[in-house]
Amino acid sequence: MTVEIICVGTELLLGNIVNTNGAYLARECAGLGLSCFYQSVVGDNEGRLTEALENAIGRSDIVILSGGLGPTEDDLTKETAARVMGRELIMDEASREAIAAFFAGRGIVPTDNNWKQALVPEGAKVLPNSCGTAPGIILFDEKNHVILLPGPPNELVPMFEAQVKPYLKALTPGVIYSKMVKLCGAGESSVEAQIRDMIDAQTNPTLATYAKTGEVDIRVTASAATVKEAKALMRPAILELKKRFGKKIFTTKEEVSLEEALVKLLVKREMTVTCAESCTGGLLSGRLVNVPGVSDIYRVGLVTYSNKAKRRYLHVKKKTLEEFGAVSAQTAAEMAEGAAKEQNADVAIATTGIAGPDGGTEEKPVGLVYIACFVRGKVTVKEYRFSGSREKIRESTVVAALTLARDCVMRTKA
Amino acid sequence: MTVEIICVGTELLLGNIVNTNGAYLARECAGLGLSCFYQSVVGDNEGRLTEALENAIGRSDIVILSGGLGPTEDDLTKETAARVMGRELIMDEASREAIAAFFAGRGIVPTDNNWKQALVPEGAKVLPNSCGTAPGIILFDEKNHVILLPGPPNELVPMFEAQVKPYLKALTPGVIYSKMVKLCGAGESSVEAQIRDMIDAQTNPTLATYAKTGEVDIRVTASAATVKEAKALMRPAILELKKRFGKKIFTTKEEVSLEEALVKLLVKREMTVTCAESCTGGLLSGRLVNVPGVSDIYRVGLVTYSNKAKRRYLHVKKKTLEEFGAVSAQTAAEMAEGAAKEQNADVAIATTGIAGPDGGTEEKPVGLVYIACFVRGKVTVKEYRFSGSREKIRESTVVAALTLARDCVMRTKA
Repeated sequence: MTVEIICVGTELLLGNIVNTNGAYLARECAGLGLSCFYQSVVGDNEGRLTEALENAIGRSDIVILSGGLGPTEDDLTKETAARVMGRELIMDEASREAIAAFFAGRGIVPTDNNWKQALVPEGAKVLPNSCGTAPGIILFDEKNHVILLPGPPNELVPMFEAQVKPYLKALTPGVIYSKMVKLCGAGESSVEAQIRDMIDAQTNPTLATYAKTGEVDIRVTASAATVKEAKALMRPAILELKKRFGKKIFTTKEEVSLEEALVKLLVKREMTVTCAESCTGGLLSGRLVNVPGVSDIYRVGLVTYSNKAKRRYLHVKKKTLEEFGAVSAQTAAEMAEGAAKEQNADVAIATTGIAGPDGGTEEKPVGLVYIACFVRGKVTVKEYRFSGSREKIRESTVVAALTLARDCVMRTKA
Repeated sequence: MTVEIICVGTELLLGNIVNTNGAYLARECAGLGLSCFYQSVVGDNEGRLTEALENAIGRSDIVILSGGLGPTEDDLTKETAARVMGRELIMDEASREAIAAFFAGRGIVPTDNNWKQALVPEGAKVLPNSCGTAPGIILFDEKNHVILLPGPPNELVPMFEAQVKPYLKALTPGVIYSKMVKLCGAGESSVEAQIRDMIDAQTNPTLATYAKTGEVDIRVTASAATVKEAKALMRPAILELKKRFGKKIFTTKEEVSLEEALVKLLVKREMTVTCAESCTGGLLSGRLVNVPGVSDIYRVGLVTYSNKAKRRYLHVKKKTLEEFGAVSAQTAAEMAEGAAKEQNADVAIATTGIAGPDGGTEEKPVGLVYIACFVRGKVTVKEYRFSGSREKIRESTVVAALTLARDCVMRTKA
């Protein structure tokens, strides 16, 4: 079956935001075995949206639209889709109640235009929105499936996962099954070079690499009549990847993040962790605390941005700061040791670096970062040279810190 | 004049990469005053590319294509564009020499297919590629300008900046100038309702709203012969917005974030700040520390995830935790007060809440958050009810905390 993706929004046409929904939907549809030949972006304009939708339903089985379901007069996607598919808009009581509850929960009185979001085309399947007020909608007839999703990614993604994916799966015979082999501590081109032979020889399953900051994921996808058969088809490739990359693989589950892998490892080892952050300024703790259940192993984190704070809370020696500077392997090591002792923690991760844009020198340029990891008495320090914006350097530091901590904990005997 | 953007590449259709070229080109064209009504993505397929290009030249003055100029057989953009525009491909000597020099410089012998990149449609303007081997191409006749650019962003961006922008500027008389009026502490539908009359009456300038987590931005755009005239045209609208939204407006500069606005305010007031975070777990400090120069006013932040940590570092009373619980207005207030005293800071921001997915009760459901802000002796506490995933609740909390802190600092006499 073919699918076409139309992202609606003047902010996309103006380039104010990058179209991450388009990439997400395309990737998910490819994973479901749907063929996508066209993607387009149109503004919140009835005439042009009508034209795009009419073109799409003429040439594609499934059309997914994102955006333009909001409460304002600019939001025309639902109205346009209903007209193109020949449906009236009617009030959906469940959606109306959900919107009322949403606002009541916040103690806000909804304005009149909020109720517009509870109008749905007759005969449509309504997709409740767990993260916002605009429900999604599926319209279908003997020829097409037209799926309307809200524009904000934090509403679109959960709705697609929980409600659209099962719907699309039911439309496609056979299964496409994929597994994500996720690696940390390796670059994309090196990973690619190491599996070039597997990619060149691939038929079913197929392999594809995806790079994120400090992380490379390899998607292994097989198509078969059943999930069991697909799993059997991909098993040899997964084993081969495990053989080639070993402990660099932190999970083979798509939904597991690097911080979650680290938290799980610490919980399993019954090791408590603390963070002492300078250049990352709280982001490292922030990532760890995003893992549900982290309270079993995480109690305190310290953001010691000033030298005084490094001395007071982490007992970094005055001499160390004077002799080597705040951004040094020595300071990083003392930060980690001091944090572990102060918190009586099994593991302590410390970051110190020059995130820029100012503050760099010839000897210590912007992007120079030291990360130290203390694990039950032993401290490991590594030097890094990152590039990019302040934000990018800090993000790279967080991922490298998670990677180093996982590595150090794994190397420690239980 | 109208412009249309076509990004060519199967990797875009499969969602393997996010279409950042599309956003970049759209933003640049909007800045040049070109109206972009359509963007599309097609694969490396001659039939579908021909269809997309024919549609585009039928309805848009300028068509910009990116991708598909490489040396492989998959790369069809130039051949297709030449055919659609009725041109022969001829060898361009300058491009041929540039390719030879590129490979000689790297000590590599070019393969036969590399010379394909030196073929250009007759009558075309050739754009030398300073960062790669495929030159860009501009084809034009009395009706259209068709601009072909290489796909890799590190080749496309410099080529656009140095060669395409001046070309497009020469085509477009006048300027489009826009300003972003950014608001915190107001919902999108409420903002929209409050400026409905201005939107309905708009001609030049125009107004449009954009929602982010906890923030609403209003873009005001004017077109005129000069920047000065455009600024004069939009001044009454900006003044009117300032009158209607007052202190909710935290900036009128596109590049200024809420955390930057808060940091600047604190620097101006010479007030130091510290954070005591429970449910946000470091994200609030992480956002503040992303602002360059924050070290003038930020030295320490504490992530006190456990009750013990709240008592030890923030001196929250045992009785308060027992009687009201860790997630309560009372605990939030004591956290902020304790942090301010412990750090001798002028301002302290404290967060405590139930981010989920577990840990909610009927009385204290997931999404219940208390934020306290201490400013020179006075503590303000607010209760919030957020919804969505753990990540979303934490992000909403960070934005609300920045908003509350800004509000409290502004209400404090200097």
